[in-house]
Amino acid sequence: MKIGIINVTGYAGVELARLLYQHPQVELASITGRSAAGQSLSEVFPHLAGIDLTIKAELGDVELAFSAMPHKESAKEVIPLLEKGVRVVDISADFRLKDAPEYQSWYGFSHPTPQLLKEAAYGLPELHRAQIASARLVANPGCYPTGAILALAPAVKAKLIKADVVIDSKSGVSGAGRTLSLPTHYSEANEDTAAYALEGHRHLPEITQELKLLNPQASLSVTFVPHLVPMTRGILTTCYAPLASGKKEKELKELYRDFYKDAPFVRVADAPPHTKQTWGSNMCLVYPTVDQRTGRLVVISAIDNLVKGAAGQAIQNMNLMLGLPETTGLEALPVYP
Amino acid sequence: MKIGIINVTGYAGVELARLLYQHPQVELASITGRSAAGQSLSEVFPHLAGIDLTIKAELGDVELAFSAMPHKESAKEVIPLLEKGVRVVDISADFRLKDAPEYQSWYGFSHPTPQLLKEAAYGLPELHRAQIASARLVANPGCYPTGAILALAPAVKAKLIKADVVIDSKSGVSGAGRTLSLPTHYSEANEDTAAYALEGHRHLPEITQELKLLNPQASLSVTFVPHLVPMTRGILTTCYAPLASGKKEKELKELYRDFYKDAPFVRVADAPPHTKQTWGSNMCLVYPTVDQRTGRLVVISAIDNLVKGAAGQAIQNMNLMLGLPETTGLEALPVYP
Amino acid sequence: MKIGIINVTGYAGVELARLLYQHPQVELASITGRSAAGQSLSEVFPHLAGIDLTIKAELGDVELAFSAMPHKESAKEVIPLLEKGVRVVDISADFRLKDAPEYQSWYGFSHPTPQLLKEAAYGLPELHRAQIASARLVANPGCYPTGAILALAPAVKAKLIKADVVIDSKSGVSGAGRTLSLPTHYSEANEDTAAYALEGHRHLPEITQELKLLNPQASLSVTFVPHLVPMTRGILTTCYAPLASGKKEKELKELYRDFYKDAPFVRVADAPPHTKQTWGSNMCLVYPTVDQRTGRLVVISAIDNLVKGAAGQAIQNMNLMLGLPETTGLEALPVYP
Amino acid sequence: MKIGIINVTGYAGVELARLLYQHPQVELASITGRSAAGQSLSEVFPHLAGIDLTIKAELGDVELAFSAMPHKESAKEVIPLLEKGVRVVDISADFRLKDAPEYQSWYGFSHPTPQLLKEAAYGLPELHRAQIASARLVANPGCYPTGAILALAPAVKAKLIKADVVIDSKSGVSGAGRTLSLPTHYSEANEDTAAYALEGHRHLPEITQELKLLNPQASLSVTFVPHLVPMTRGILTTCYAPLASGKKEKELKELYRDFYKDAPFVRVADAPPHTKQTWGSNMCLVYPTVDQRTGRLVVISAIDNLVKGAAGQAIQNMNLMLGLPETTGLEALPVYP
Repeated sequence: MKIGIINVTGYAGVELARLLYQHPQVELASITGRSAAGQSLSEVFPHLAGIDLTIKAELGDVELAFSAMPHKESAKEVIPLLEKGVRVVDISADFRLKDAPEYQSWYGFSHPTPQLLKEAAYGLPELHRAQIASARLVANPGCYPTGAILALAPAVKAKLIKADVVIDSKSGVSGAGRTLSLPTHYSEANEDTAAYALEGHRHLPEITQELKLLNPQASLSVTFVPHLVPMTRGILTTCYAPLASGKKEKELKELYRDFYKDAPFVRVADAPPHTKQTWGSNMCLVYPTVDQRTGRLVVISAIDNLVKGAAGQAIQNMNLMLGLPETTGLEALPVYP
Repeated sequence: MKIGIINVTGYAGVELARLLYQHPQVELASITGRSAAGQSLSEVFPHLAGIDLTIKAELGDVELAFSAMPHKESAKEVIPLLEKGVRVVDISADFRLKDAPEYQSWYGFSHPTPQLLKEAAYGLPELHRAQIASARLVANPGCYPTGAILALAPAVKAKLIKADVVIDSKSGVSGAGRTLSLPTHYSEANEDTAAYALEGHRHLPEITQELKLLNPQASLSVTFVPHLVPMTRGILTTCYAPLASGKKEKELKELYRDFYKDAPFVRVADAPPHTKQTWGSNMCLVYPTVDQRTGRLVVISAIDNLVKGAAGQAIQNMNLMLGLPETTGLEALPVYP
Repeated sequence: MKIGIINVTGYAGVELARLLYQHPQVELASITGRSAAGQSLSEVFPHLAGIDLTIKAELGDVELAFSAMPHKESAKEVIPLLEKGVRVVDISADFRLKDAPEYQSWYGFSHPTPQLLKEAAYGLPELHRAQIASARLVANPGCYPTGAILALAPAVKAKLIKADVVIDSKSGVSGAGRTLSLPTHYSEANEDTAAYALEGHRHLPEITQELKLLNPQASLSVTFVPHLVPMTRGILTTCYAPLASGKKEKELKELYRDFYKDAPFVRVADAPPHTKQTWGSNMCLVYPTVDQRTGRLVVISAIDNLVKGAAGQAIQNMNLMLGLPETTGLEALPVYP
Repeated sequence: MKIGIINVTGYAGVELARLLYQHPQVELASITGRSAAGQSLSEVFPHLAGIDLTIKAELGDVELAFSAMPHKESAKEVIPLLEKGVRVVDISADFRLKDAPEYQSWYGFSHPTPQLLKEAAYGLPELHRAQIASARLVANPGCYPTGAILALAPAVKAKLIKADVVIDSKSGVSGAGRTLSLPTHYSEANEDTAAYALEGHRHLPEITQELKLLNPQASLSVTFVPHLVPMTRGILTTCYAPLASGKKEKELKELYRDFYKDAPFVRVADAPPHTKQTWGSNMCLVYPTVDQRTGRLVVISAIDNLVKGAAGQAIQNMNLMLGLPETTGLEALPVYP
């Protein structure tokens, strides 16, 4: 089956190319990227010398496409593809929010196809596996929401969390993309840790949307603060919430294990997870615990932001859409150390 | 005035040596370090070639000493010095907690001199300036408590925080010291972020002790989770707490500015602080803000864990004890980038 | 086919486990590791949770074994295995040097089985493919020699280099292994670059042995200086040598391309290679050029020290020994960024 | 005395501001920076909050100015200042080369004031102290030449090196400046080492110019290859050259110690130097040794590229120009770890 990537030259796009090359059931047939159109993929990315493809301005004939365009521009690419009958996994934020006014308030413009917001499946397989399988458009979750939702979903679903939630995320710098900026300039980002987007990060409405679906009765009050830490890959998310009932550590772990028993890419860890334990892989490690002194729930998750947080999850979604085993092409173990 | 350092060979000790060398009013006269006794300081630390001192097994005649020994061992060194009339700034945890049973429960043994726990000044000058000035024994705060207490003190004092407090700290690896361990082995710590001490970190009781002093009526429920991020120096602390009253952002900043108006080493920042902005300096940057969506207070602080979090603060305490201007020898600006 | 790893707990051992797990033609059946004997592999290395094996004190029944023991101890493990008919790829230095007195002068003790030194194949497939295929004992090259020999072999073979050779290598810290030491302590190695082993590194005799085989008439005078740079993986080797004839850049590149035309894991690069372009993969990038001002040959190579410099090359050797395609199980592309 | 900085917003400019703030004998009175004109220094660089200055478009009245402009633009700023009688230390490359055609061939345009090339002092105090003291224009050396020349000068002067010289330099990323570029984007530079400028780096003619002055009879054939390593600050330079005479290690060290006996910022080290041992300081560590197997001279130097390689050396030059002790304001010890 022929697959395409729109905008292969960003970090999500190039990671898609790496992973699709290793996928035994599909063929990466067409790649686009405006600034690099006309160049071979290996010229721009020498580490991909094994892939013999030229970057084009327009996508060729494919049956399924990944869009790794920035938001707003992605919708423009995706709509005509759907009209042609091409199924799409959109890595941008353009189809993640169900509510058009919410989209407008966070992204600053009116969504071109609000009806598609309703139709698109939110591509977190652990929550929406069936819907993804039959979707023609899957909105791949943001990197932070992937880590945060997977950390909190079992507890919210079980009504262990009812109100205050604090999500403190620490991301590697590749999450900010390949576009140059002062905060991602090496000498600025190295040996530095800082919070950002304290006025509100665009990934917050994704998180609240999905948590509400898990427990519509709860009125969750979520504070989300992202941080940049000096590493290339990885997101560690530490979540804090008062525990509604007197759950014990052991019951909590069992609840989580049960929730994820059919999820091949979520593992409930026995010890606090390290982002390094997911490096280059599609695995999400989740570690729920109870702060005995305060009765507060603390859940930590670790992912590779470019794999489970972007390209790997997109391929996981593609596998579901194509009726393949969810893990196809994603079996590689994390690279350590 | 002659000054000594007990255990110069750890990171706090060697940082003390660097800073005291630049201090115009005191003379670093004697240094000890068991493993390196007999060697010159510059043999062990070539960057200190400017200091011509030999590491000894026993401290020579000094009027004031810094102890950079590990806890338990530090108390053994400090007690005889006090008896000889030497004033001491203890960088270890041995005299930070006022309550002997609390000390025992966290450190696992009975404190040898409970009466000294009461007497010792908690060496956070921004809270205990007067007591420090006249103390013969100052307990230098832990690195995490320094960042956390300075972030929260104005709000707790003003009764803006009454109950739940979450403290999420991100520390550079030098905070774990110079002693070898697998988590601080380069290939393990590099490109990795993880939480640790989820069962309870020894810096927690320091934080709660000091916050309670600021508002004895409040029944604060504090969860503190430390994280290791891949950088050498720096602690970023992000604090979250429901805001008791409807304080506005601007009033909050004014409250903080007022609280720290006489503190030369705390600056209320105009933008989220970066640890890099404190690198090598004794400055603490504090940034209070309100999450408008939830009304939650979010306060972020940044310090260099080895300076304001250890050696620099110890010298700030020494300055107060000696009646010198608090900033003497600590004027160097942060090294950036 | 059942395969074993002796000493799985070092970085080469654990990387072998990762790569063998993905190998479609062999089964990782037995692993040893003294300090961790009795523990499951995933307890010690959570990122390997996919592999269900217990670390044992003694190797079980296997047809081929990798020894990732330190030198001296490795020979003790390898000899009885060979006697039992198990084929071995030894990752230690114990069988790399052909000359027993040379071994003794560098390693400080008399080799227990000098006859095996003669028999063992030096496991650089690009030079000794046929010998490796039929060997019962393959000595996997050191990480530095792999990068240096692959950079210089075509030029030495073609007699373009006759005398002076300078090899300046820059290695990531994982090359120093998982054993704790001050130079590999995070806060020491981070933000630091230094040379070491200026009195002579044990990888030098490997390099000279192999270069002499390529041109026995040449009397090469080789200076090799290794450096540690603050990254986890990767070796960049920059080689300098006067060019014996007036070769032009273009002819030089053709010579190199021709030399490596059948080598799937060496690519003659079009631009100066980056270690990151080999991260996690078995690829070696080689870039030969002529310094036009001096007529000096400059050749740069880049490898991942734990893959082509250790575990990956060991599997490449195993593939040859088993008559499998050389690339089996090693097709994964580098992980970038 | 009033001092100015032209273009304070690059890394050399901002480091000048940091160091001048601590200088007891001069007053930083005026700073310029086109893109940031009108902003306060502390807005752009919060770590400099201690300095109360506004960035202007034009330099105010000063007696001595530092120009931290890029080459070509720097000459345009410097010439009118000299005409007004302001003494200048130029951090750009514009006045480093004595030979106008050489300048043109490396920088691609005809130098506007060739007579100033002859007049300007090459600001390496260890070689040109007297000339610098009386100069009205000092050309501050490049970062690589500083490390390379200080490593080689004693040997070249003593005629120990007569022909082939290889200079392999490893630089931290701040050497590439604050201007955004893909190679200095965090995710590209982190966990990567690579060589660059193999076709010839503009610092090469500086190095050869100065080495020739030390031994005009020698016909040195110099190959210089710079590398980027993943750290913010520091340059390690490893130099290789056949030793003309049979100098022994000990004599060599004595020769170097004697050469630098009056140089407060060069220390002949007892062990291979680490860049970290110079972090934030103006010190250059030099380590000469003989490769016993080949008789080749190997000399290693370490500097902080932004201090001895730029701003610190500029202040050292200013001190000489003003008749101050060379070390004034530069006494701070390196920050370690």
